Amino acid sequence: MKPKSDEKPLIVLEESSDTASNPTNNVNIPNTGALASAVDDDDDEQLLSVSIDKNLDNNFYKTNPTKEKLNNLSIEETHQNSAASGGSSRNSENAEPSVSTDNLPGTSQAPAQTVASTLSASLPQQQQNPTFRIRSRTAAINEHLASQSENFESLDYDVCENVLFQKEQERISSTRFSLRKDILRWIIFIQIGIITALIACAIDIVIEELSSLKYEFLKHSVDINVPHQDNPVGDLAIPYLYWLGLSMLPVALGAAMVTYIEPITAGSGIPQVKSYLNGVKVPRIVRIKTLAVKSIGVITSVVGGLAGGKEGPMIHAGAVVAAGISQGKSTTFVKDFRIFKAFRDDHEKRDFVLGGAAAGVAAAFGSPIGGMLFSLEEAASFWNQNLIWRTLVASIISSFTLNIVLSAYHGLGDFTFTGLFNLGKFEQPLTFEYYELPIFMIFGITGGLLGALWNMLNTKINKFRSRFIKFKFGKVMEAVLVALIGVSLACTMIYFINDCRPLGNDPTDYPTQLFCEDNEYNAVAALWFQTPEATVRSLFHDPPGSHKILSLTLFTLIYFLLSCFTFGLNVSLGVFIPTALVGAAWGRLVAMVAYYVFPTAAFLNPGKYALIGAAANLGGVLRMTISLTVILMETTGIETSFFFPLIITLISAKWVGDYFNEGIYDIQVKVNHVPMLPWEPLPHYMGLKASNIMSSPVVCIKLRDKSKYIYDILNRYKHNGFPVVDDVEGNDRSKGRVCGIILRSQLIVILLKSLYEEKKRFWINETSIQTFRDVYPRYPSIDNVRMHDDKVNYTVNLDIFMNPSPVCSREHDSVQKIFNKFRALGLRHLIVVDKENRVSGIITRKDFLYK
Amino acid sequence: MKPKSDEKPLIVLEESSDTASNPTNNVNIPNTGALASAVDDDDDEQLLSVSIDKNLDNNFYKTNPTKEKLNNLSIEETHQNSAASGGSSRNSENAEPSVSTDNLPGTSQAPAQTVASTLSASLPQQQQNPTFRIRSRTAAINEHLASQSENFESLDYDVCENVLFQKEQERISSTRFSLRKDILRWIIFIQIGIITALIACAIDIVIEELSSLKYEFLKHSVDINVPHQDNPVGDLAIPYLYWLGLSMLPVALGAAMVTYIEPITAGSGIPQVKSYLNGVKVPRIVRIKTLAVKSIGVITSVVGGLAGGKEGPMIHAGAVVAAGISQGKSTTFVKDFRIFKAFRDDHEKRDFVLGGAAAGVAAAFGSPIGGMLFSLEEAASFWNQNLIWRTLVASIISSFTLNIVLSAYHGLGDFTFTGLFNLGKFEQPLTFEYYELPIFMIFGITGGLLGALWNMLNTKINKFRSRFIKFKFGKVMEAVLVALIGVSLACTMIYFINDCRPLGNDPTDYPTQLFCEDNEYNAVAALWFQTPEATVRSLFHDPPGSHKILSLTLFTLIYFLLSCFTFGLNVSLGVFIPTALVGAAWGRLVAMVAYYVFPTAAFLNPGKYALIGAAANLGGVLRMTISLTVILMETTGIETSFFFPLIITLISAKWVGDYFNEGIYDIQVKVNHVPMLPWEPLPHYMGLKASNIMSSPVVCIKLRDKSKYIYDILNRYKHNGFPVVDDVEGNDRSKGRVCGIILRSQLIVILLKSLYEEKKRFWINETSIQTFRDVYPRYPSIDNVRMHDDKVNYTVNLDIFMNPSPVCSREHDSVQKIFNKFRALGLRHLIVVDKENRVSGIITRKDFLYK
Repeated sequence: MKPKSDEKPLIVLEESSDTASNPTNNVNIPNTGALASAVDDDDDEQLLSVSIDKNLDNNFYKTNPTKEKLNNLSIEETHQNSAASGGSSRNSENAEPSVSTDNLPGTSQAPAQTVASTLSASLPQQQQNPTFRIRSRTAAINEHLASQSENFESLDYDVCENVLFQKEQERISSTRFSLRKDILRWIIFIQIGIITALIACAIDIVIEELSSLKYEFLKHSVDINVPHQDNPVGDLAIPYLYWLGLSMLPVALGAAMVTYIEPITAGSGIPQVKSYLNGVKVPRIVRIKTLAVKSIGVITSVVGGLAGGKEGPMIHAGAVVAAGISQGKSTTFVKDFRIFKAFRDDHEKRDFVLGGAAAGVAAAFGSPIGGMLFSLEEAASFWNQNLIWRTLVASIISSFTLNIVLSAYHGLGDFTFTGLFNLGKFEQPLTFEYYELPIFMIFGITGGLLGALWNMLNTKINKFRSRFIKFKFGKVMEAVLVALIGVSLACTMIYFINDCRPLGNDPTDYPTQLFCEDNEYNAVAALWFQTPEATVRSLFHDPPGSHKILSLTLFTLIYFLLSCFTFGLNVSLGVFIPTALVGAAWGRLVAMVAYYVFPTAAFLNPGKYALIGAAANLGGVLRMTISLTVILMETTGIETSFFFPLIITLISAKWVGDYFNEGIYDIQVKVNHVPMLPWEPLPHYMGLKASNIMSSPVVCIKLRDKSKYIYDILNRYKHNGFPVVDDVEGNDRSKGRVCGIILRSQLIVILLKSLYEEKKRFWINETSIQTFRDVYPRYPSIDNVRMHDDKVNYTVNLDIFMNPSPVCSREHDSVQKIFNKFRALGLRHLIVVDKENRVSGIITRKDFLYK
Repeated sequence: MKPKSDEKPLIVLEESSDTASNPTNNVNIPNTGALASAVDDDDDEQLLSVSIDKNLDNNFYKTNPTKEKLNNLSIEETHQNSAASGGSSRNSENAEPSVSTDNLPGTSQAPAQTVASTLSASLPQQQQNPTFRIRSRTAAINEHLASQSENFESLDYDVCENVLFQKEQERISSTRFSLRKDILRWIIFIQIGIITALIACAIDIVIEELSSLKYEFLKHSVDINVPHQDNPVGDLAIPYLYWLGLSMLPVALGAAMVTYIEPITAGSGIPQVKSYLNGVKVPRIVRIKTLAVKSIGVITSVVGGLAGGKEGPMIHAGAVVAAGISQGKSTTFVKDFRIFKAFRDDHEKRDFVLGGAAAGVAAAFGSPIGGMLFSLEEAASFWNQNLIWRTLVASIISSFTLNIVLSAYHGLGDFTFTGLFNLGKFEQPLTFEYYELPIFMIFGITGGLLGALWNMLNTKINKFRSRFIKFKFGKVMEAVLVALIGVSLACTMIYFINDCRPLGNDPTDYPTQLFCEDNEYNAVAALWFQTPEATVRSLFHDPPGSHKILSLTLFTLIYFLLSCFTFGLNVSLGVFIPTALVGAAWGRLVAMVAYYVFPTAAFLNPGKYALIGAAANLGGVLRMTISLTVILMETTGIETSFFFPLIITLISAKWVGDYFNEGIYDIQVKVNHVPMLPWEPLPHYMGLKASNIMSSPVVCIKLRDKSKYIYDILNRYKHNGFPVVDDVEGNDRSKGRVCGIILRSQLIVILLKSLYEEKKRFWINETSIQTFRDVYPRYPSIDNVRMHDDKVNYTVNLDIFMNPSPVCSREHDSVQKIFNKFRALGLRHLIVVDKENRVSGIITRKDFLYK
């Protein structure tokens, strides 16, 4: 499914997924024979809303188990509950005739019937239930987006310790391979740091050079076209048109690249990296093509003058670099270097991507510790000392490389290039007085309110966008339009506000005279004639009295709205810098107004309050408190003693903001229906048990099963994990005794390579864990498997392939407990068993999220 | 068992534990009727050595299960394998007559016999086995210490979700209690920050004032007693004697307090806090009495002039404060404030102690981020965003409070007191050249070698100590002796080395003239006439040319040895400052020598190399790289660009040091046989499975069991967790089907409160989770329970008391996998089940450690 214009393309479907290849599919809605009869009368949304009944916890001990199960029915693809239902109509047609050979769970009438009958019995009751306002919420969401979430897959962060893996381990422990692997890992982390920094440098330098050319040209054009005595024919429309051209062209280029070549590169990339690290497979997120488009996209957008920063894309770039290097192969270039093969699984790759994201932050802000903390705050759930250590080293190497390159670029001999503090170093230690603490708190509260407002507005705008701007061309045009509006507003402001300052201690690179006297420059033009990052620096460090109150007020207002419209456009831009800019602007503004009112208050240093304002606004929009503190500290070189004001501001902003909505990244994740696990189970799950959220009956496979059966269930269901059972009574596998779990990808490889027990002597010697790793991460689809008649009756013995140690829970375990297990161990599937260790349900990450 | 003089009192037995109350016990050695016959012929050490056979992994698939089990037999108290064996002889006597009522596992002859017979059959074979050098290693360790480790208990970090807990949760979810609990938690964290900082300030100020008095007096005394023309009768023996007195007296006082009042306060306290956070119950570690003794101990020792710092004790103080505040009661003062009752379990308490330790670091070094990272690096295994966030706030509040108080104390109005950088702020940004990077690496390697040497020497000295200095008085005398030697060496050095520097730019507080000309001061006396911390500051910041090469060489040597002898004395002192001091001394020395050889090398800033040397030495001794980097950065105010040299130095030091031995804290933990879980399973476990390390058969309890049976097993075995089983065939509970786990403490409460099923109507309404929390953390011993004859046949129904969701694993799970589970979930017991969910063994933390 190519991203259509009617969807927000932040995260789109995997092109190669088998759903996507079927444009007319409605696979997401479970409707088998048995269930369909009950459902078809109803519309799909209704079924969609049959979600967890919160009040159920009061009568757990009374309700019968079937009814409990019912409440967990929800439409979800990876979910095992479609076992009771079925595949798509297309799949059903294919599969139906094959059922005769074996008793498929989907056609085992008993459980499906139960569900169907209880479903029809209790639907009316549920509709009366007041807690079903959830339903309306779900129904209100754009349908297309809702169905999109069904197609995200999880990553396998649990190590599959099958017999093949154990064999490799034995081989490893007999050689010095383990040490080699450890050294290799270090080398990769160091490479990640260096290459991420080099890419960041390239982006940095290109943006700086191009912006410099652009604004120098514009300044010149203004200078020669200002109408005054000597030049009565001067027409300021000319620089305006130049400016328009120099903004709209790059933006159009960037937006077109993002829209037509790689839509996943839109936005900052941080929500996507977050999701990836959380264990959600975001298609094409870590490809080289993505990196290329993102890099060019961010350069064009920043040069074009949109209200965005390059920081988010740099973090994404770090993640791509990490994934690329660690795998030793590239999908974009269809090139396999045949190195680092031992790292080809989700678990290892995640660790590298964590390091890459940290290196990206370090390179973007020159903040190595901030990078490490960012990775931790946004991503890691299990704290492993060695991993963190490697992450820190990658960040430090990254910031060091950046320092070397930028020092050399700026012609400095030693490593004291303060441009590393990319928000400018505060030369004087910032001080504060006791009575300023409440002021900081008020700033924090204001930041929280403004941030919440910004997040709300931005979300509304983006919803509007995904609804009405459906065509690709429209998306590009929208970006160009925002650029046009931005330039026009800036021009109007520069034209009408007469804010002249004496030259000499001018902190701007392109002092524009405009209507000012000689020896003066226009302070408003100075605000606009530079990249947003440079404007933040100006607001932090310009001497007091550099701006008029009116000009800064208008600037704040315009930038607030511009940034709100910009984030969500189809361009590669981060949200950090515009947010900091808005905050710095109003922070400085407040200090200026206060100083105007109380001209004796010496503590009203506008730079300090610009910093506090930026912190407050960042806290209000992003809500990442720990890493923000450290990043702000590292990028501005402030002292430890000023941590306390920063933290007070950030806490206030976060708490106030959290009262209204979530951080912008989390909102983006939610809007795109990415099944990301939160830090704690949602409050609605309080008091629920495993049996309330699990899906059942489960599609299971016998330890020794017929290839035909496996082929059929792979075709019929889209689940990614199947419990392997033995001790099956009759053919009802769904109540078998758990002996392991096998992944869809493994089953497909088994079928493709014909690893049948009857032919064991042919393959047993060549087959190793590498056989499975070779196809990572693009596992073939079941469509690639042809089932010849002669293969139908072969037996697959899963003994050496399956993961024999699946994590299990009991039905009565609380959601809190299984959630902790799930998160701490990075699971994808959790099998729920009864006390005899027989399958009673399965839980995947989506079961922890509201549907 | 009162700590006898023959043991290292870093960590001693719990006085109140039931083992300890029986001075003649040999409970640790499992010798029941069945097993005793096989064991008694052998000596105890032999059994002690029957540990895991590393080579076994090669023939796992061949050996029979009984033999495998045998290899896991080891003497261990919490271990369930004493199920096959029995209690002590005393317990056997008590218990034997009672067996008639029920079939106790200890007397169920089948399993015990199997073990016994295989044991006797295979013992000779094992003695031939070359891998049994482990045995000799174990045997070489002080016997007393070995048996001591048997008495450590684990903490319960897994939440017991029994029915009572669920009831409370329901109550909570119906009220706003959850929010209140969250706010309470914040309040406690803020209090922890403030109080920890206040204690740190008090220690700081008292040390500063007393040291100031002491050294001023000594300087004066030297000044008036120097023999020269005007004063021919001057005798330098007088200030020497004064110095001796002013050193030995405080040291004697401190050592006596530590030795006689609270031996757990010896040393820095960091290893103990680490162990606690890792999940090991270290007796008396978080009591107020401990805090008081530690505070006075560290003041007297630092003022006495021993080679140690106050930083470690401050971290310990933070942990005590956290535990004290969060529990709202004090054991020392037998006072229960009846607040914060909801936080009375190991899990909650751990989180607070984590915050307390972070606040301690923040207060000790003025390093809030370093504090948070220290907590993480040394302690946490599960990264929880909220917890880290609270920890950071505690650290920042702590350093802010410290800043306020010290600023006020030094009479400064704003918060720029640079004394917060307690190693002194580098005013000039430190720079470096490319070609210095290899030099930093060589510094790191040197630091690693010296650190490893220091660790080895210190360990040898402490072994010698625990062997030969057995009496308390001897320990006090030893501390006094070290103080005497220190003063004498210092005096000799000052007397014989004539290192005079011109007054004027003298960085010392007490410039002593001694034999120097007027307008000169003695640079050697300047090194010694201050606290070690001040000396580090001097070495970092003194202008070039402040010392002679000879004097600094001697000083380095003397201090290296002094610090090595000091750490391990019975005084409260940390190892951070002396280590940094030695490193700074040799770092500065190297720079001085190099400058002497290449007088044109401008980069040879002695202060910079002192810092690098300190980092190298710290890395070599402590091996905590992440937090050290940040702490050094925060305490000296260096810039981000200098991170890279620091990290290169620290990595080299850590890697070189790790080749030889572990960090000093880990060595201390090992020497004291604290069962602390490492970050990764030990390499010897590679390829092993759960069945290889588990203990079996397991003492189990039926879901409904007779009170007499429970009473008997509690008396007979010292295990802390018992699987609850049902579906028991006959009376062989050890093969029952797992339905939960119950803790010893819970069983004792049940027996004490007579919560029998037959009397349910009397207690069911009053009993809640609070009934069990009330006795936390000092659960009564089973000796407090009287079993009257009329109660013998009552039934205990564990249904509402047991934890119904024990974490289980399968026999074939790899040790790597169960280790991850164990660490990530913070478990105490892991039940190993077969595929029918029947008990087949149990794993506790000690099974992951070499015995």
